[in-house]
Amino acid sequence: MTPPDDALSESELREAWPALSNRERAEGLKVLPRAAAEDLFFTLGAREQERVLRDLPADERRTWLRVLPPDDAADLLQQVPAGPGREGLLALLDEPTRHEVEALLAYQQDRAGGLMSPRFGRLRPEMSIAEALTYLRQQTRVKVAASFYVYVLDPAQTLLGVVSFRDLLTAPAGARVQDVMSKDVVTVDSQLGQVEVARLFRSSRRLALPVIDKSRHMQGVVTADDIVDAVSEDATSDIQKLGGSEELGEPYLQIGFTRMFRKRAGWLSALFLGEMLTATAMGFFEKEIDKAVVLALFVPLIISSGGNSGSQATSLVIRAMALGEVKLRDWFRVVGREIFAGLALGATLGCIGFVRILLWQKAFHTYGQHYLLIGFTVGASLIGVVTFGTLAGSLLPFILRRLGFDPASASAPFVATLVDVTGLIIYFTTASAIMRGTLL
Amino acid sequence: MTPPDDALSESELREAWPALSNRERAEGLKVLPRAAAEDLFFTLGAREQERVLRDLPADERRTWLRVLPPDDAADLLQQVPAGPGREGLLALLDEPTRHEVEALLAYQQDRAGGLMSPRFGRLRPEMSIAEALTYLRQQTRVKVAASFYVYVLDPAQTLLGVVSFRDLLTAPAGARVQDVMSKDVVTVDSQLGQVEVARLFRSSRRLALPVIDKSRHMQGVVTADDIVDAVSEDATSDIQKLGGSEELGEPYLQIGFTRMFRKRAGWLSALFLGEMLTATAMGFFEKEIDKAVVLALFVPLIISSGGNSGSQATSLVIRAMALGEVKLRDWFRVVGREIFAGLALGATLGCIGFVRILLWQKAFHTYGQHYLLIGFTVGASLIGVVTFGTLAGSLLPFILRRLGFDPASASAPFVATLVDVTGLIIYFTTASAIMRGTLL
Repeated sequence: MTPPDDALSESELREAWPALSNRERAEGLKVLPRAAAEDLFFTLGAREQERVLRDLPADERRTWLRVLPPDDAADLLQQVPAGPGREGLLALLDEPTRHEVEALLAYQQDRAGGLMSPRFGRLRPEMSIAEALTYLRQQTRVKVAASFYVYVLDPAQTLLGVVSFRDLLTAPAGARVQDVMSKDVVTVDSQLGQVEVARLFRSSRRLALPVIDKSRHMQGVVTADDIVDAVSEDATSDIQKLGGSEELGEPYLQIGFTRMFRKRAGWLSALFLGEMLTATAMGFFEKEIDKAVVLALFVPLIISSGGNSGSQATSLVIRAMALGEVKLRDWFRVVGREIFAGLALGATLGCIGFVRILLWQKAFHTYGQHYLLIGFTVGASLIGVVTFGTLAGSLLPFILRRLGFDPASASAPFVATLVDVTGLIIYFTTASAIMRGTLL
Repeated sequence: MTPPDDALSESELREAWPALSNRERAEGLKVLPRAAAEDLFFTLGAREQERVLRDLPADERRTWLRVLPPDDAADLLQQVPAGPGREGLLALLDEPTRHEVEALLAYQQDRAGGLMSPRFGRLRPEMSIAEALTYLRQQTRVKVAASFYVYVLDPAQTLLGVVSFRDLLTAPAGARVQDVMSKDVVTVDSQLGQVEVARLFRSSRRLALPVIDKSRHMQGVVTADDIVDAVSEDATSDIQKLGGSEELGEPYLQIGFTRMFRKRAGWLSALFLGEMLTATAMGFFEKEIDKAVVLALFVPLIISSGGNSGSQATSLVIRAMALGEVKLRDWFRVVGREIFAGLALGATLGCIGFVRILLWQKAFHTYGQHYLLIGFTVGASLIGVVTFGTLAGSLLPFILRRLGFDPASASAPFVATLVDVTGLIIYFTTASAIMRGTLL
């Protein structure tokens, strides 16, 4: 419980934060009492921490960098391109931490190795309980969060077992560490992806898990709080891509306008170029439209239904993939489900569309003598377009992943664009088949 | 480390899991060794656990329900509608756990009170360290995960401070609990939402936080592993809604076809009914289309650009809201940003569209003598449509939240539907203004 007036000024600064320039933020941190400033600094994402650091004088930069545990320092350094800038920051760390951070930088950020802290409590199996407790009292560089479990290692750093402080406290007199340690350790491979790590936390009900390499050498500890961040950042990136922009990588209100514009304009222009094919496709059917302008009236309705059903399918599949519920090899089962879903959804919309045309005809005589043909054309096209949209939306994430891209790039707008051209072709082809000799 | 052959059969069962019926799953859990079966049971979501339970004979139902800690048991019970079914399950719990679970059921699932475990280690301030250690050795009902911190309470259960096992171990001889406890406790209000709880975990760097009520009475403990689940489930729900369906609530490959169909068909039909307005709007401009069929060619391109830019804006804003970066009162700042973003993005697409028409005209003479007018119409409409799409997409989540709905219901298809009708009106009005006296 910080004294009320500090808490106030911290909360005031927090409130004003998004509107402040980087320089003002760096100033703000200096004004706060050190503890409150550190609390605020810890809440920032790695990218923001890096920005604040950049605007501090060199000597202060060091104290702020050193306040971070090695895993967070590594995340921050990952924001700086490898080169003299990153080297300069690395040089501010003390010797042992620098080695730890350099080791972490070798891992990808979304692997267990990139999420772990290299600091943890360690014991030898042959120690007596009393020796172990004395030894642990002296280990001060261990991150508090990770120190509930203590790991038992042989001299080659191979993981043999785990003990909790509780085990040590309740051990019978004269016991050794190896007598009370649990050998039933849930371990994490350093190359494991964060989605799988998150699942291990759920199933193991532990707050920290040891990270090992292929030969069971202990590398570090991942804690559940690191996973909270990772899971949330992952979802943010997926949602932003799904909406059809690049990942912002910064809070919405804080990202600079030009940077945001570039991240949005890229995809939007690419989709626009793709969507131009609709003008070509429409041009191909210009004669039909000229003969029966009524056909043009339903174009937006038909293609948007394909886009909507594709958007549904793609977001369901992308999320199921991100959660590991659906794997690449499941594509055939997914296609099977989606063909039936598409047909059922298309039939539903087709019926609504058909009934709507009958009702309007009865009420306003909008569609002339061939209103039944128009109704059939719209109904049948909807079945085709919605089925195609559903199939395309569900398959595209598989294709992207198979080609090595992020499945979340199969955004709702991407799928809609893909479906629009096909939707037009399905619609006008159906119209030609049904209306030849009458309206066309 | 479970013996390899058990691990194998567990992983086999896990592999086959999605394809199994509920009855086969219940059977599968019986075949596995108890420890492996429990591990598998723990990985399931509350809803799946409830399904498995339903297919077990009454006596086994009890042992599986009792294996869950009270917070997970409460999540499971939340899947059963209040009534005799839920009462029956509650009756299977032992007396003290039943009271704990009933207390948890009183909280909403996404509040700290609904996420917490009511079991934690507690001490009195005046205890000696030796008494405290003896006392803690006897507390066996505490969830391991939550027991790294021990909370110091007065007789009225008011939270006074926190000690770690490490503090107790390193305490000077003769000290009392109150001498070594830290009074600087980060606490969580029981009504705090899970997004804010997740943020507190990040800033406090703790793995467990005490939950208190308005009068600082200790209610329970939230641990970081519970938040991992909550954050991930939240993102799943947002992504599914953003794609334009209801939240599935079950893994994609496991949800029954009819249930999935109903969750998708509802929104899709509603959007379809809304989208019918495009046919009405198009009907309104039928004469213009009849005069200049060329106008119809660009309809899909124009309206899809509005939909795409709306989808971008809505997903950025919805995610920023979910993360707490954007609050209701920020709506004006967001609108300010999005007007400029929309104008800039619209101008970009407008230029591309204009250039495309010039190029096609040079190459294929597609658009006749008035191609410049067509180019201006398309370019100007794109600026209007994209700006409107961006604005609508960013404002809709605010309006929904203000009205008490979930902002994530402002799905990409919802925004697209909203924008399509307006897009048509903008396009044809612009065309009338520019082409009056020539093509129209």
